[in-house]
Amino acid sequence: MRALRLLEWKTEPALVEIQRPTAGPGEVVIRVGGAGACRSDLTVMRDYDSDRRPWRLPFTLGHETAGWVAEIGEGVRSFEVDQPVVVYAPWGCGRCPSCSLGLETYCQHKDRTAAPGGGAGLGRDGGMAEFMRVPDAERHLVALPAGLEPRRAAPLADAGLTAYHAVARSWDKLRPGSVAVVIGVGGLGHLAIQILKATTATTVVAVDLEATAVELATRVGADHALPGGPRVAELVRDLAGPRGAEVVLDFVGSQDSLDLARSLVGPLSDLTIVGLARGTVPVGFPTIDYEVSVQTSYWGSSRELVEVVDLAARGLIDVETCEYSLEDAAQAYVDLAQGRVRGRAVVIPGTRS
Amino acid sequence: MRALRLLEWKTEPALVEIQRPTAGPGEVVIRVGGAGACRSDLTVMRDYDSDRRPWRLPFTLGHETAGWVAEIGEGVRSFEVDQPVVVYAPWGCGRCPSCSLGLETYCQHKDRTAAPGGGAGLGRDGGMAEFMRVPDAERHLVALPAGLEPRRAAPLADAGLTAYHAVARSWDKLRPGSVAVVIGVGGLGHLAIQILKATTATTVVAVDLEATAVELATRVGADHALPGGPRVAELVRDLAGPRGAEVVLDFVGSQDSLDLARSLVGPLSDLTIVGLARGTVPVGFPTIDYEVSVQTSYWGSSRELVEVVDLAARGLIDVETCEYSLEDAAQAYVDLAQGRVRGRAVVIPGTRS
Amino acid sequence: MRALRLLEWKTEPALVEIQRPTAGPGEVVIRVGGAGACRSDLTVMRDYDSDRRPWRLPFTLGHETAGWVAEIGEGVRSFEVDQPVVVYAPWGCGRCPSCSLGLETYCQHKDRTAAPGGGAGLGRDGGMAEFMRVPDAERHLVALPAGLEPRRAAPLADAGLTAYHAVARSWDKLRPGSVAVVIGVGGLGHLAIQILKATTATTVVAVDLEATAVELATRVGADHALPGGPRVAELVRDLAGPRGAEVVLDFVGSQDSLDLARSLVGPLSDLTIVGLARGTVPVGFPTIDYEVSVQTSYWGSSRELVEVVDLAARGLIDVETCEYSLEDAAQAYVDLAQGRVRGRAVVIPGTRS
Amino acid sequence: MRALRLLEWKTEPALVEIQRPTAGPGEVVIRVGGAGACRSDLTVMRDYDSDRRPWRLPFTLGHETAGWVAEIGEGVRSFEVDQPVVVYAPWGCGRCPSCSLGLETYCQHKDRTAAPGGGAGLGRDGGMAEFMRVPDAERHLVALPAGLEPRRAAPLADAGLTAYHAVARSWDKLRPGSVAVVIGVGGLGHLAIQILKATTATTVVAVDLEATAVELATRVGADHALPGGPRVAELVRDLAGPRGAEVVLDFVGSQDSLDLARSLVGPLSDLTIVGLARGTVPVGFPTIDYEVSVQTSYWGSSRELVEVVDLAARGLIDVETCEYSLEDAAQAYVDLAQGRVRGRAVVIPGTRS
Repeated sequence: MRALRLLEWKTEPALVEIQRPTAGPGEVVIRVGGAGACRSDLTVMRDYDSDRRPWRLPFTLGHETAGWVAEIGEGVRSFEVDQPVVVYAPWGCGRCPSCSLGLETYCQHKDRTAAPGGGAGLGRDGGMAEFMRVPDAERHLVALPAGLEPRRAAPLADAGLTAYHAVARSWDKLRPGSVAVVIGVGGLGHLAIQILKATTATTVVAVDLEATAVELATRVGADHALPGGPRVAELVRDLAGPRGAEVVLDFVGSQDSLDLARSLVGPLSDLTIVGLARGTVPVGFPTIDYEVSVQTSYWGSSRELVEVVDLAARGLIDVETCEYSLEDAAQAYVDLAQGRVRGRAVVIPGTRS
Repeated sequence: MRALRLLEWKTEPALVEIQRPTAGPGEVVIRVGGAGACRSDLTVMRDYDSDRRPWRLPFTLGHETAGWVAEIGEGVRSFEVDQPVVVYAPWGCGRCPSCSLGLETYCQHKDRTAAPGGGAGLGRDGGMAEFMRVPDAERHLVALPAGLEPRRAAPLADAGLTAYHAVARSWDKLRPGSVAVVIGVGGLGHLAIQILKATTATTVVAVDLEATAVELATRVGADHALPGGPRVAELVRDLAGPRGAEVVLDFVGSQDSLDLARSLVGPLSDLTIVGLARGTVPVGFPTIDYEVSVQTSYWGSSRELVEVVDLAARGLIDVETCEYSLEDAAQAYVDLAQGRVRGRAVVIPGTRS
Repeated sequence: MRALRLLEWKTEPALVEIQRPTAGPGEVVIRVGGAGACRSDLTVMRDYDSDRRPWRLPFTLGHETAGWVAEIGEGVRSFEVDQPVVVYAPWGCGRCPSCSLGLETYCQHKDRTAAPGGGAGLGRDGGMAEFMRVPDAERHLVALPAGLEPRRAAPLADAGLTAYHAVARSWDKLRPGSVAVVIGVGGLGHLAIQILKATTATTVVAVDLEATAVELATRVGADHALPGGPRVAELVRDLAGPRGAEVVLDFVGSQDSLDLARSLVGPLSDLTIVGLARGTVPVGFPTIDYEVSVQTSYWGSSRELVEVVDLAARGLIDVETCEYSLEDAAQAYVDLAQGRVRGRAVVIPGTRS
Repeated sequence: MRALRLLEWKTEPALVEIQRPTAGPGEVVIRVGGAGACRSDLTVMRDYDSDRRPWRLPFTLGHETAGWVAEIGEGVRSFEVDQPVVVYAPWGCGRCPSCSLGLETYCQHKDRTAAPGGGAGLGRDGGMAEFMRVPDAERHLVALPAGLEPRRAAPLADAGLTAYHAVARSWDKLRPGSVAVVIGVGGLGHLAIQILKATTATTVVAVDLEATAVELATRVGADHALPGGPRVAELVRDLAGPRGAEVVLDFVGSQDSLDLARSLVGPLSDLTIVGLARGTVPVGFPTIDYEVSVQTSYWGSSRELVEVVDLAARGLIDVETCEYSLEDAAQAYVDLAQGRVRGRAVVIPGTRS
């Protein structure tokens, strides 16, 4: 079968012919229906220096994958052939305190995993292929409800799940009367807005530098959508009152956006960094309001993937996507790097370009 | 009556004769039994520049006060004369969302208070006097149970309450099997150790640069007490496992101690800054483990003061103190500034030097 | 001024002329804009036997009141004349652990209150009058945002707040993928449906014996609305899966409805009794699924009233009402008792019949 | 090897010779070091009528088992031979929402398990044998820290875990100043007292009808130990104040003890039924204080077993046991039924009678 694989560090991936996988004990092989191209793949492919290459090459890219069960290994009881599923892609040890709660992103025994800190498409073969093997399938597959097609569901595995986890961890602070600010209305941010609207009654304020993103924010339900700029902090205070926002989610994560984020919060707020643009927030008495909790948030748990799938199946959230054939998968990453992708790029193996 | 008052910014306080206060509607006057001298008073007295003087002078110092009810104003129903009480000293608007939960430290309507961001001994007359007036006494007084004398209870109002709030906000992460690190075993840190031991089954690791503080940590119940130094991080990992500590409480707050704190935490930990030494923790993907929540913590709520008083009355925590007469109160601050006070300095108005 | 007052136990209330109240220290007098007639008033008026009459007569009825500030007593800082407000009507001691969190319904020092277990319209003069005095106004008044008129806001003080508290206490169990069942779609139930939809992404199933109530449930947003009957339990299992519902809120509370409620829950569910029809749920290993939490829920906190007002002001919930003049207030209760009121009956003092 | 097996319903178990088990994929065989005899086994053996026999016979008894790893099946990565371990015995589907949180007691897909609602010693071969097979060993084994011998650890698997889960679910209500009442100071109750003392600063009041149990309560750390009787409710109110206890844990569960429990609680308390004596608590407005949550509690999660093992390894809890050889295992149940066992009866296969 064909697969888009990373063959060498700091190169572009190549579409090559490899053996179709089979399902050993505890494993399931799925026929891929959709595989999302994520910006973090660009970092893996292009930026990892020799001191930061945790995995062996080659491997197939794609950590946002949905499809249909094709082959079921010994001991797997919960699935049947042709059932539509989405893959929970961070693969930890399955047993440490984090993994035992389904939060394999924060596995504490990385040395016991085949690709430490990784998973499908991140050190192990992912979904940019016609078929994909899923180990420990009872832990790593989530059934798709009727009506939610794999090509629609694929981006939930990372874009959806990451946005969901960042929102859900702050639910306690998102009571009626609160204000939540979403900075950056791209693939993740436009889902965060929808998740906030679906699961809370907070007032959602979205901020983005791009006019099309501001429009997108409004279209997906933000109560207020503001173009970035020097007056943003003042406008947010007008909406939120002198206290500031209860929750700020930064899907950009640059130093500029984090400086803005820090100016928007009040005592006891949450400021959560999701975007990977490598900025930092200095936390201390001289620099930020009392007891603001500042943290990064990375991906999510398998239980949360079940929940975000439920939201999508019921039409409460919807991902903007544009589709590519497997032949054009490498092009999807080029387009992504050049800012030419609107919404989430999803590779559909069965189609022809 | 006599009172130790701050008459001018950037001067030492003076013991002067003023009018004994009377109790208006909603107020109580207490006869002071003990008033703690806090390091933050030194900052107020000595360091506030002209751009940071939120309050009018003069006022009586002392935000850690306990005593006996001497006079009861109209409308106060919950107290009787001679009843021992401790004062909740951060005085907010009483009505905003923070104040309505008894967390007046984080009052959101500071402009509606007589001393914005302050309270007893911080812009308004505090406890370093023979008598003290307490406004909104139903909100600001906590009854002392039998057996807990005001001179013992006074330090609970800040040292006890601040340590308690910092611990209590992290209870969810302090399950059996977890590790909590206390950095800095002074007036607050030695109470934090005791509060951790009394209210959780976490393993408590204390770290301090001073040998006497390391001894104190052991004496008040730390499971492990480590002298500061280059090997601390390694020793904590030996105790806590590769994951690191679940909670780190920094009662120093300098850049050095915060850099240490940052090296001790693992995914999903809490790193809480209590010490006022003006360091900061940079939070972002490049600088700290996934989803570590970093925040300052300042003082606590009136409900928490009731709880910390309960712990002290039942002998579950005990404050180390050394006592001064009111005549020697100014000297207490001098000793404090020079590091000559062991435990908490408490001024006892009724005594003679 | 005129007021509808209960003069004797087990009689109908009478419209009588009394002195217009004035505002003492800490008090506010409001000009009433709307006062809801609640079914529980019928119980107070008609059913209290001599062994259960906690309050002195006479008093003005009405515990659901909104209006405009007319006079401000000494020491009240947060309001101004003509400002629209709604009254938090359960008036406790203000100081016990429950009251200090704003949950005065569960005051632990009932002996320190003027009407133990009561408040406005329940032992003390309520809102069925042209003017009403509100003691401890800083605790007991909530400002109305622009656009939310007192006549619309009045029912939020009990019908809204009670439904809100019952929902909010179960938020943790109302994650996406969960099912919540509302039994009884009357004045409270139709608000509970809207509050569930506004604040969570749970699937809401409503059940009522009356066809008009089933229609109302659908109109206000229930995902499924079922007529009561022998097949309800089976239909709910079809929707919720074999596990059953995560949360069941019973706004009827009769033995029949509670028996139904008990059949709908699964392990770890919440079954909350709000309706006052005096049924009970037997809880034990032989009678209900593992670790189902069963409890009554009564009214709510002042903080929650702020939040439910926010939902109404933003159009996320809307109360069905029918209006009466003060002259017809006694008739409102007669209509209510006879089931002739659709939605909530609200008395508007300024109008003429 | 020899094993104590239930051969027919409503008979006593028999010590018989069976094949020593081997470890298939995902399985571990342990050499048994201790197997607790639990009162619930008596119910299974003696009381199950033909309408309530969910499992096939025969099977080896014993759901409280610890030992050493003897053989490791394919795919098990976390254990090594001779390592001491304790068995998490409720074996669910491993995948439903409950199981994915490690709470297999409340498995929602009982039809997908070999012994629905059971596990080791409950429908499947348990620990009253020289060796025992543990399926899905990564989920069902917990490593024992150095110094905690299997014969001491065995009772943690049920007596310890059940008491722990019942306490831990109420931690939020067990703040300093609260009162917790433990009714019934037997095998579980004496552990609940220790767990409460180790993990909270609540005041623990123990109640039992037997003088020796009252003594035991005091010895293991109860703040107050009361003999049962008509004055108990009054004495508890003296200790807890008019509000009543915040948490009542009933380890008896008879109608008498539950009636007592119901009289001890105040608004917002937790009343948790752990004892299996088949009583019930009627919950409704006429019968119990406002918003008291009443629920059963059954066993616990694998994560909680890790935590209770940590408490035991650190000496914070200690189980009273008396030991039997495997030859005398049947006698252990006879003694248990006749009330002649002090603490927990533990069968030690390697010993001779």
